[in-house]
Amino acid sequence: MVSLAGGLPAVEHFPSQAYGEIVRELLCDPESMQYVPSCGELKERIVEVMRRRGVECGADEILVTTGAQQALDVAVQGVLNPGGSVAVERFAYAGFREVLAPHAPRLVTLPSGLDDGLDVEALERCLLAGARPSLVYVIPDAHNPLGVSLPRQARERLVVLAHDYDFVILEDDPYGLLCCDGEFEPPLAALDSERVVYAGTFSKILAPALRLGWLRLPASLVETFAAVKEIGDLECSRLSVLAVVRLLRDLDLERHLELLRGTYRRRRNAMLEALAAHLPAGCAFTEPGGGMFVWVELREGVDGERLLQRTLTERQVAFVPAAAFADGADRSAPGNAARLSFSRLEPEALREAVADFAACI
Amino acid sequence: MVSLAGGLPAVEHFPSQAYGEIVRELLCDPESMQYVPSCGELKERIVEVMRRRGVECGADEILVTTGAQQALDVAVQGVLNPGGSVAVERFAYAGFREVLAPHAPRLVTLPSGLDDGLDVEALERCLLAGARPSLVYVIPDAHNPLGVSLPRQARERLVVLAHDYDFVILEDDPYGLLCCDGEFEPPLAALDSERVVYAGTFSKILAPALRLGWLRLPASLVETFAAVKEIGDLECSRLSVLAVVRLLRDLDLERHLELLRGTYRRRRNAMLEALAAHLPAGCAFTEPGGGMFVWVELREGVDGERLLQRTLTERQVAFVPAAAFADGADRSAPGNAARLSFSRLEPEALREAVADFAACI
Repeated sequence: MVSLAGGLPAVEHFPSQAYGEIVRELLCDPESMQYVPSCGELKERIVEVMRRRGVECGADEILVTTGAQQALDVAVQGVLNPGGSVAVERFAYAGFREVLAPHAPRLVTLPSGLDDGLDVEALERCLLAGARPSLVYVIPDAHNPLGVSLPRQARERLVVLAHDYDFVILEDDPYGLLCCDGEFEPPLAALDSERVVYAGTFSKILAPALRLGWLRLPASLVETFAAVKEIGDLECSRLSVLAVVRLLRDLDLERHLELLRGTYRRRRNAMLEALAAHLPAGCAFTEPGGGMFVWVELREGVDGERLLQRTLTERQVAFVPAAAFADGADRSAPGNAARLSFSRLEPEALREAVADFAACI
Repeated sequence: MVSLAGGLPAVEHFPSQAYGEIVRELLCDPESMQYVPSCGELKERIVEVMRRRGVECGADEILVTTGAQQALDVAVQGVLNPGGSVAVERFAYAGFREVLAPHAPRLVTLPSGLDDGLDVEALERCLLAGARPSLVYVIPDAHNPLGVSLPRQARERLVVLAHDYDFVILEDDPYGLLCCDGEFEPPLAALDSERVVYAGTFSKILAPALRLGWLRLPASLVETFAAVKEIGDLECSRLSVLAVVRLLRDLDLERHLELLRGTYRRRRNAMLEALAAHLPAGCAFTEPGGGMFVWVELREGVDGERLLQRTLTERQVAFVPAAAFADGADRSAPGNAARLSFSRLEPEALREAVADFAACI
């Protein structure tokens, strides 16, 4: 089986040996395994990561979470009131839809362009027509599943709308430091600190098993959100917190990111070239500036889920069909699309897998 | 400052060096830092821990969680419906009250005896009078904060009531393997597998920074509860899961538990002797069979929170006053009590701290 399905980071770049040495050293002091992590120094390191991303903020605006998934869950619990409404793109990270589900909010479903992502003008039309979401969810760069990034103008307009219509933007930015070509635009959190709740993670730039992410939010809200986090799992691992602080001190993060970007650039290029070479007429695909995913719109009449059955049985190739990212109740979401991940495989394997995928269409 | 406040385990018994070596070895394979922990082998080890506790169950009845706090949160989300009612003792683990808060359930508040804990007869009277909790929360052994354990008869009666009145028992058992004198009675989960959702943790028997706990619940519910866990933080750390499996394979758990029990026995004895020697007339205290806490009822007219101010300023001794464990809205909960922890300090330090505490009364 060759998988273009999961969003698994490139394992060969995990700083695993360095981390192993650090953990062993830290555990010479058994207090490293005790309760009560002190997150102060980690927050300072996160502030530096945010600065690299173009966001100036203070350590008192950071809440450390158990990965970005907890960050999203805490943000939704902290912002959404019963009966509230949430605006989400037609196709969006499935883990965010799951976070919403227990709250059963009214959904404002927004279209996205294959060139520039979330259609902010469509959001504005919904607002003019009376929609009043309390939360708008956006993945500004290397969108999951679309791979697209939001142009600067759209980011600026979104922030203005948040003020005009009194909503909070939940900015999910797992891939923002993984730009293949230069740098992404600064995130919305760089444009506004009142209306934007930003979620970041070490899973994609260091390693997922650390289970460490963060929220950047107005300092006045940190305590309230921290209480929500505490309900969920009490605290992050003291050992992980200490070890990541040490890792970020020892590691040349700039060089490490360059390494990641180079690897993902080669893989993305291989996938895009293979798609251009092999996809039949009538298909289209996005050209991500980074991250892990390409979105393929299949030609009309080709159903993503049926195609998956075929690629699995005939070519042993896996991918994720569009339906996995859509609201189950949204019958208008077209099913003739697929998310392909380029993060895990070497260029040669990617080319073969894409050729197999295309042959099944 | 000398603290009798927190429930911090004895740090000198954390298997930190062994764990450090294991982590370093595991990280020779960077896949250990990837997403997607495979919890199968850990579940088998948890089944063995449960057997040691007197519970026979299958690996398919175990859900691995990010500590016991997540186990409680997942259980409440999985069981409690909107508008539902929950029965809780007048004094109970504050972290559980926090889990309940967002659901705003109707509370059935139950008294507890200083000898045998939760007053099951009082629960039965509430049920006869028409109360219909969907969930009853109980810490059967070495209760937090009371230190007491539930007699066998009360456990059996509670299970019968759960069937008769159609409620789920959420059994919180962090200290069940830390009996100072022989063994505790088997938990309620040993008596019933349909109505009892059992929460366990490695925090007290290995170390808190592992952030690993579990639920034992009917196999038919595992998938539903797993979805709730996934919303909260996606998954547990693959590295922690792999490392704890290896640790439990290498460690002689029986001997390790004997070590812990011996340490806590000496500390408990020192605290009880000091309380008997120093407490003024009119006070009473529980005699825990294990765990970490003794509950002291102060003589009438002594307020726990005012006493804390005094012990802090005059003797630099900290403890947790009763109010921290009561429902904030429950004006009937007496404030003249204190939870003292014996888990962290050596006998000599405990004797001094208790003498200082008693002198302030």
